[in-house]
Amino acid sequence: MKKIETEFKIKVEFYDIDPMNVVWHGNYVKFLEAARCDFLSKLDCTYMDIKDEGFAYPVAKMEMKFISPCVFMQNLVVKTCLEEVEPSLNFKYTIYDENTGEKLFSAKTMQICVDIKTRKTVYNAPKILLEKIENYEG
Amino acid sequence: MKKIETEFKIKVEFYDIDPMNVVWHGNYVKFLEAARCDFLSKLDCTYMDIKDEGFAYPVAKMEMKFISPCVFMQNLVVKTCLEEVEPSLNFKYTIYDENTGEKLFSAKTMQICVDIKTRKTVYNAPKILLEKIENYEG
Amino acid sequence: MKKIETEFKIKVEFYDIDPMNVVWHGNYVKFLEAARCDFLSKLDCTYMDIKDEGFAYPVAKMEMKFISPCVFMQNLVVKTCLEEVEPSLNFKYTIYDENTGEKLFSAKTMQICVDIKTRKTVYNAPKILLEKIENYEG
Amino acid sequence: MKKIETEFKIKVEFYDIDPMNVVWHGNYVKFLEAARCDFLSKLDCTYMDIKDEGFAYPVAKMEMKFISPCVFMQNLVVKTCLEEVEPSLNFKYTIYDENTGEKLFSAKTMQICVDIKTRKTVYNAPKILLEKIENYEG
Repeated sequence: MKKIETEFKIKVEFYDIDPMNVVWHGNYVKFLEAARCDFLSKLDCTYMDIKDEGFAYPVAKMEMKFISPCVFMQNLVVKTCLEEVEPSLNFKYTIYDENTGEKLFSAKTMQICVDIKTRKTVYNAPKILLEKIENYEG
Repeated sequence: MKKIETEFKIKVEFYDIDPMNVVWHGNYVKFLEAARCDFLSKLDCTYMDIKDEGFAYPVAKMEMKFISPCVFMQNLVVKTCLEEVEPSLNFKYTIYDENTGEKLFSAKTMQICVDIKTRKTVYNAPKILLEKIENYEG
Repeated sequence: MKKIETEFKIKVEFYDIDPMNVVWHGNYVKFLEAARCDFLSKLDCTYMDIKDEGFAYPVAKMEMKFISPCVFMQNLVVKTCLEEVEPSLNFKYTIYDENTGEKLFSAKTMQICVDIKTRKTVYNAPKILLEKIENYEG
Repeated sequence: MKKIETEFKIKVEFYDIDPMNVVWHGNYVKFLEAARCDFLSKLDCTYMDIKDEGFAYPVAKMEMKFISPCVFMQNLVVKTCLEEVEPSLNFKYTIYDENTGEKLFSAKTMQICVDIKTRKTVYNAPKILLEKIENYEG
């Protein structure tokens, strides 16, 4: 499969920070979702487009590794890489400090395609997604 | 109108706390929503029941006063008081420390009744809500 | 006092959206905080700079008006206007749709200056903040 | 090592729900944290007690499996089981529907002990934690 990787910038906000003065670990889930939606936008195939075809992509599994803490106003880059489309949609993510390039965090997500009407899992990706991946030029 | 007031208990979680070691001010909106839903449950008239009648109650206005900061693991009581039902659903809230009784926070919300189908504002409350208020025995 | 107004752009994320398919009302508090921090960055006087002078600025009061709902992937502009610096730091905010210019939301916040060591309220703004406002050129 | 398992109840709030009308996947991180803090409270050894000994326990790794979606007002039980204390603090979690007993979610977290002063990782657990585990009677 074609390897596609995008970059998404995030600035750490005050509301992301916990009493240890670092990003609260649960907030990385938001960073990953924002980066993934940005990936799909760049692919020209958003959740809305996929929904219009009758499918949804709930997250079924995720793994996160917290390598080095992020702090208030730090500029981050999330690299999002599509690993697999079928039978599930798998992404890999790495977060770096925008300035130093230091690796701070990594994660993986697995999303299952669900037919919205029947509520059943579908193991073939929607055509629209496969086509957009095929035609993606970066 | 009948005066109805309920109490709802909250324990401050680690994820509620900000770098100043106090509850982040935006998290009070969650406390108010939880207390309001608890109020409606006790009234036996949840958002689901209201939705089944074709109406939704989006928040149109809110005011919050942060009197004294709340800390990790603090036990809070939210007193929720129904102030008005028509033309809008108005609640008043006060948060106290469960142990000392100290007043820590107060707020008001105004919710507008919307007909889900037509998307129009409705100035008369849904019958189900009026009846439940009428029959509430505390 | 000098009138200073900044603009901050936000794209609505999936995690901002509630079951009514609009931004959950509590998430506007995050939008306001991000816009306010951006304002202070542009002024070259962040919370960190103020903290270095021994002061903090907790939010003491806020008011929000939800005019028209915001949806997934909508591009928003938050206009943040400094209204008062003493005896409290007051901002006014308006959120517009970036494309149509439609006004969607407005808010006010009042922040109290606190001496971090003594925990007492201070009614004169820290010098650094007054100077930065004085010297701001936009 | 002694096997310790606790149960913690959660009611799904409106603000936990996403546009698919199910709990947004990132909110499970909050459920796990609340359940873990409850575990440590029952052990009589909270983060505060550990901090007083000079140590913190940031989450270094986590894995989540989303088995079946949770809905608004659903009553959940989080079972939290201590798996390992040294060299890292590992918990396993399972979320069930309180009424049906259906398994909805499972997760694992790994936390690293950090000496707050030196910022270095410590591979032996703080004495206070080992003692409280030893003396726990359930």
